[in-house]
Parts: sequence; C-alpha cells; structure tokens
Amino acid sequence: MSFATLLSQEQVERIHEASLEILEEAGLKVRHEPARALFKQHGCQVEEERVKFPRAVVEKYRAMYPPSFTFHGRDPKFDKTIPQDSPVIVTASSAPDIIDPVTGAERRAESADIARIAHLVNELPGYDIFSISTLADDAPADQFTISRLFPSLKYCLKPIRVTTTDMKDTLSILKMAYIVAGGEEAYREHPFLTHHYCPVVSPLTMDHLSTENVMFFAREGLPVYPTIVPNAGLTSPMSIAGTVAQGNAEFLAAATLMQMVREGTPLIYATLGTVADMRTGAYASGGIECGMLHMAYAQMARFYNVPCGGYIGLTNSKLNDAQAGYESGMSGIAGVLAGMDMFNIGGLIDALKTFDFAKAVIDDEMALMMKRMKRGINFDEAELAVNLIKEIGPGGSFIVHPHTIKRMKTEAILTKMADRDARTIWEKKGAMDIQARALNRAKEIMAQNTDPLIPAEVEERLRAEFPGMVPGNLEPIS
Amino acid sequence: MSFATLLSQEQVERIHEASLEILEEAGLKVRHEPARALFKQHGCQVEEERVKFPRAVVEKYRAMYPPSFTFHGRDPKFDKTIPQDSPVIVTASSAPDIIDPVTGAERRAESADIARIAHLVNELPGYDIFSISTLADDAPADQFTISRLFPSLKYCLKPIRVTTTDMKDTLSILKMAYIVAGGEEAYREHPFLTHHYCPVVSPLTMDHLSTENVMFFAREGLPVYPTIVPNAGLTSPMSIAGTVAQGNAEFLAAATLMQMVREGTPLIYATLGTVADMRTGAYASGGIECGMLHMAYAQMARFYNVPCGGYIGLTNSKLNDAQAGYESGMSGIAGVLAGMDMFNIGGLIDALKTFDFAKAVIDDEMALMMKRMKRGINFDEAELAVNLIKEIGPGGSFIVHPHTIKRMKTEAILTKMADRDARTIWEKKGAMDIQARALNRAKEIMAQNTDPLIPAEVEERLRAEFPGMVPGNLEPIS
Repeated sequence: MSFATLLSQEQVERIHEASLEILEEAGLKVRHEPARALFKQHGCQVEEERVKFPRAVVEKYRAMYPPSFTFHGRDPKFDKTIPQDSPVIVTASSAPDIIDPVTGAERRAESADIARIAHLVNELPGYDIFSISTLADDAPADQFTISRLFPSLKYCLKPIRVTTTDMKDTLSILKMAYIVAGGEEAYREHPFLTHHYCPVVSPLTMDHLSTENVMFFAREGLPVYPTIVPNAGLTSPMSIAGTVAQGNAEFLAAATLMQMVREGTPLIYATLGTVADMRTGAYASGGIECGMLHMAYAQMARFYNVPCGGYIGLTNSKLNDAQAGYESGMSGIAGVLAGMDMFNIGGLIDALKTFDFAKAVIDDEMALMMKRMKRGINFDEAELAVNLIKEIGPGGSFIVHPHTIKRMKTEAILTKMADRDARTIWEKKGAMDIQARALNRAKEIMAQNTDPLIPAEVEERLRAEFPGMVPGNLEPIS
Repeated sequence: MSFATLLSQEQVERIHEASLEILEEAGLKVRHEPARALFKQHGCQVEEERVKFPRAVVEKYRAMYPPSFTFHGRDPKFDKTIPQDSPVIVTASSAPDIIDPVTGAERRAESADIARIAHLVNELPGYDIFSISTLADDAPADQFTISRLFPSLKYCLKPIRVTTTDMKDTLSILKMAYIVAGGEEAYREHPFLTHHYCPVVSPLTMDHLSTENVMFFAREGLPVYPTIVPNAGLTSPMSIAGTVAQGNAEFLAAATLMQMVREGTPLIYATLGTVADMRTGAYASGGIECGMLHMAYAQMARFYNVPCGGYIGLTNSKLNDAQAGYESGMSGIAGVLAGMDMFNIGGLIDALKTFDFAKAVIDDEMALMMKRMKRGINFDEAELAVNLIKEIGPGGSFIVHPHTIKRMKTEAILTKMADRDARTIWEKKGAMDIQARALNRAKEIMAQNTDPLIPAEVEERLRAEFPGMVPGNLEPIS
C-alpha cells in the first residue's frame, strides 16, 4: 500500500520550518521548573517561564528519535511494536461516564465497570491495547488510579495504557505493577504498562504535573508518550495548516524534552487535533477535519521517521446511531490509508465523555475492517487466477471450485456484528439494530472466561499494600 | 492530494496483461448478434456466441478512450464533468422497496415516492446527480421507465441517470426528454439524461438488451456508460486480485465495443465489485472488501486515463443504524482517498434493495464530508499563520482573532445532521438519533420549494403522448 497524502513534500518541509521558527521565536511557556532547567542546560534560552528553542537544539535531538515504539502485554504474545504491527487499535480512554448496560441510562463510571470493560477488551480480537476506558467514581481517596488499574490488570493481559495525576499516584501504580509482575526487575524486563500524558496545553504551554511524569518515565526508561491536542479556532489557528504547524511545534518541544532526559527514548507522534465548531464552540472530534489533521500529522511523523497515532474515529453522537458509525468509520479508514500506526478509537461516544459497551463491540468489528484494509491485496499468480478465469469461462460459476473453498474464510472478513441477512430472516431474528446485537454480544462475552488473571495470593498482597482497594470483580450484567 | 494505492505500478500492469490474456484466450460470450457482428468487423474472432479479442484490437481501441465524462443537468449550473469536478455524488438506484416515511414499514416503491425523492435530491447540496432511486410499482403496462422518469424530471433539475429495459422503453424516454427539452435538437445540445446499463453479466458474458442499449446510445452520441459487477466467490474468483483482473477484462470488452460503435465515445470505468459472504452466499456490498475492490479499479482507470466510479459505500443493514453509518462511511472515504471520481452512494439500505429518506439525508452530509476531504488542506502563508501563532503566543486564545472569524464558516463543515450538543441539550431537544433528525429534515425539505419544474403545458403534451401516465405529484407526507 502507498499512503494517501494531503500535503506535498515541500509543504511538509515548510511546516517543519514553520515549527522551528515558532519554537525559536515564540517558544513555550514551561511551568515545571526541572524541565526549564533541563532545557537551559541543553542550550535553550530560558527567561522566567519562557523557553525558546534554537533550531540547532531541536535538530540535534530530532536525530535521536527512535523509529519504533513497543507496547508490552502482560502476556508477551500481545506485545505490539509500531510501525511494524500497525494498525494497532487502542481503546479511547478516561471517560467519566458510561451508558449503563442494563438501564441504558448515562451515569458515572465505577471500578466494577472497568473490570467488565477490561475483560471485554481482552476477549475482543480487534483490540491490541487497553487504554483504561473510564474513570472510577468509587475510587477511595488517594487511590484514584489504583482503582482503575487494578480491575484492568485483573481481567486483561493485553498491553495497558494508563495515565496518573501526580508523582504519588505514579509511584503507587508502579508499586502495583511490580507486585503483579513478581518484582521490580521482572516488571522492568517486560513493562506491561504504557504511560501517557498530555504535557503540552495548547497553545505552546508545558504544564507541571504531566511534564513531571513524562520526564520521570523517560528517565526510568519505562514506556511513555505524550499526545498533542490543539483545537483549531480556540487553542490554535482556525486553519488546518496552522494547526498542523503549531501542533508540530508542540510535538517537537515534548519530543526534545524526552530526548534531553534520556537520549533515544522511544516516542510516538501522538495527536488529538480537532477543528472547533465555532457556532457553539463545540468540541468536534467527530468532524472529518479531525481525520484530515491526523492524516497531516502522519505525514509529519514519517518526515521525522517516528511512529504516529492518535485519537481518531471519535464521535460526537450520544448513542450508537448512524452518526456514531460514520464519524468513527470515515476518519478511522482515512487514518489507515494515511499510514497512521496507532488508533485510539474504541468504545467511547459523546466526544470522549461516555463509554458504551455496544460501541466497544462495534468498534472492534470496525478495527478488523481497518486491519483488513491495511493487509491489502494478496498478489501473486494464484491470486490473480488467470487460468481459473479461463477454465471457468463465460457464464460459469466459481462457487464450488477449490480455489474458492480455500479462500472463502480468509479473503473477506466474516463479520460477526454486521447484518447481511435477508430482511425476512433479520425480522425473524428480532429486527435488531447493531446496537442491540452488539450489546447482546458484550453480555455473552462477559459471561465467558471470567476467571481473574491475577492469582489470589497476588491480590492478597495488593490488598495488604493498598488497604480499602476496590474489589475489581467481574460482576455479571443483570 | 496524492491517492492511496493498494497495487504497485507493476501489479497494475500485470493486471492489464492478465486481462488481455483472458480476452484473447477465453473471450466473452456475446448474446447480442449485432455486437458480435461489430466485433468481427473490427478484428475479433467470433465463433458461435464466443468472441475472442486479439490484444492488438483491445489496445487499438483503448487508445481512443476519452479522458473525461460529462453529466448534463437540465439546469446547466448542475453540469458535472469528471474527473475535474470529482468527487461527484450520485444516488444509488433502482431499489424495488422503500421504507415508508410515515409508517416506517418496508413496502414496494411507487411513482409518488420518486417525486418526493427527486425533489429531496434536487434540494440537498451534497448530491450532484439523481440516479432514479427506486422502481415504480404502480407503473402502467408499457410505461415502466416513463413512470420513473416523469416524476424525476418534474422535481429535479440536476443530471438524471436512468436505465431502460428494451428499445421500445428506450425510445419512449427519449421522446419524453425531447418534449421536456423543447425538441430533439435542444435536447441533443444538452442531454440531461445519462444512460446506464450493466451489459456484462459476470463472468464474461454480454447480454442482449443492455448491450443493445449501450450500442444505441453510443451510436447516437448520447451519454451512456456501463457498470461491471463481479461478485468474488460466485461470479469471479474468491480473490481480490482475480476479481480485479476479470472485472478489468470485462470493462475492456465493454469499452472496446463502445469505441467500435463510435470512436471517442466518452465512458466511465464504473464498477460494483463485491466479495460474497460465503457462509450464506450473501451479497456483501457493505463489506470493506467492496471498498478495496473499488480502490484497485480506480488504479486501473488511472492507468487507462479514464474517469472512474461505482457503487461504493453501500450497506447491508436493514435500517439506519451504526452499521449503515460505518459501512457507507468507511468505503466512501476509501474511495475518495483512492481517487474515485463518482460515487453511487446515496439513500439505499439493505444492499440496494430499499430506499430510505433519512438515509438519503444522512448520506448527503457524508457526501459533504467526502468533498471536504477531497478539497484538502488550504496551504499558503496566511493559512500556515506562523505570525499569528507567534502573536497569540503561549497560553493565548484564538477565538476572537479576525483570522479565526474569517475562516470559521469555511474551514470546517458546519454539520446540519451530526449532533454536537452537550448531552443535556441533546436530551432537551428530544434525545433523537440521527435517523429521527434526518427524517424530520427530509419532511421539512419536502414541504419547501414544491413547485413542479415542468411547466403545465409541457406536462399536458406529455400526457397526450403517454396516456395514463402516473401523476408524478409531490404529495406531502402525513
């Protein structure tokens, strides 16, 4: 496959130049003092909170970006490295709310929901990485992230992506990870958590806590990457080109910091660029312009030879309707055809605010379609089948030929959720829309393979370490 | 924009070679005798119904394919030429059934439905061409196509695509066109009907009636094009590569015939390739493989320097759910990014069997998104906005800057159907899904600008010519 591009090579280079100019002349406001000290130490100009980046400094550290990034699973069979294994499909994360699978009403998400979601994501074949989908409203004080991570680890062996609030929170989840892994050394050999932050607040500001965390993990040599989140019209120019230029400058600033902390720190050119709907200021993450921004960022990432990805294929819809389908599907496939490596796409509706079980199941099938597209066209003489076409000839049938039998389960996706029945059969089966079928499927999956993936004795140790920790059990839906 | 490709240039050339070999050694069964005579006259080998194509013959006529195709509207402001004006969005057509906009039940479609659909398509900005969406179950005997065309002309000034059954049917619609245009000469100067057939029945068979019609219109110099419809696993090999090779051979056969009839006849490389779901033999027009086939055919069309298009972005769903959204959206945007010029995409569900008003409105908004994608990224120094980014600086806001105000209505699509409200506001507005909103929008549009677009005296002449013709009136939905 060769990728679709929205920018010429000349335009890519112009954006790089524009970013260098922005970094050199405007620079960033950096709120975290140790970051400022590090920038200064490595050649940036620092005046109060403002850090300006001479282009030679940016270019020096740019040469150190590694070309790949690995997500480790607790079970190494789930390890994924991008760009090699792309497209890698990640759940979209940190929604405060959930559509209750019984009542259908929106409510705050809790740790028990995370157990169910972790199990579902572990079972669904389209997902590669579980980025913890919701917050946990029942988290005890001081266990904000522990309450999300424990149910995730209890039911999911795939790589887990997690964020934290402050260093205390960060150290607590590392303690949990070490216990689950059987010690710090074992964990560091195969760090099954990938840490994620948004250290840059657009426009051009590096915050305190997220920056501190990114620096910490880079220093520790543990997997971490930042996402850049400009919103055209509000926090970046109301032009896709300008938002690419500013976002690219912000990526370069974060990436430079990571390389200054530790040369060769793996990273991802990760983005959540949007264009605001200026009628209301709405966050239009379902807009096609969000897909276009990601396509452009993917080109910039290729220019820098780093893996890329981001929050693409989100929807503004409040439920699983056609809008949710086309908003996710259009930008999702645009990302695949633009060469994005990682997609934070699964399970959320209402512009990242709400998790929905049926949406997670539907997005899984979309993920399989995206992977089918990326796999492309098998091409050799057997696939081209010229002799077969001549043999069957005008008016013949291919149905029972061995060439057909051999490929009928692999050439096309045999969809589980998409309905292809005749209308009369579909009616006999209950005339359900895909939302209803997907919710049923979610419930089926939740009732299977329900054993916890953390041994009882390890859970005991965790409970001793974190008194009052949430149960994290997989409760059946009823 | 540079397009995504699934085939290398070498593979494109291999497919062309494979097609020549198929045409030379297997050839086509041609049921229409005058077509066989023409093929023979121009150098093909004809034995009974079998026609074999020496490669020199195919290559000779391939050199005559014109690089563009024009759809004329009754109002010339709606004229569209591909590839220049691409993507051109066409309704998908000829569904026998419709979802009744009042009862929500599926039933046979009638001529009154076509009047409503024609008016809707005339008003919706995303549609460029009205391919008559349904059949008319109330058509009087011998007025099969007249009953579909008259309501279409009465309420739509955009280019109309139409098919016919036999030559009698064909001559009747031309008579209607001449009367509406004010005479044959006036019509021929600006032929607002585009004729469409599927003369090739896969594998490798040319039928009688459609072939006769294609030859007739090519001879007359009136706009006509054929669509090639292989279905992998049933009527072509169960491999995308093989289905591209066979379909390409079938296209070359039809295109060769058209050039033999009249050198330089404009055409479109039009396709409806699918991969069958072999669990049931279901027609999987919503599968992502359908999108992939079209992407490959678009590459073949570019190799031949002819405009391309087809039935892409169809859905197997029985209603407007998330499946309908993502099936239409994923293949639709894949087609845009692969450089397809024409999309037969609008208004149908259930794999071309059923028209739905809400789907037509939803597809219109998707069409606008596809066009936005194709428009790409405006790129100049003002769009790049480096000085603006430096001026606003770290922590600033772009909201009220003139650069933002100037672009806020044009940089991103201000969606009409996609909901971007906060959940509480969405609930206050009735908590509707996009299906409900789109149906309301369809009803609103149907109540506006309801004047017929055929003058009363012209309708009188038509009624005199075609006694018993359907009323073709725009009846309000109630």
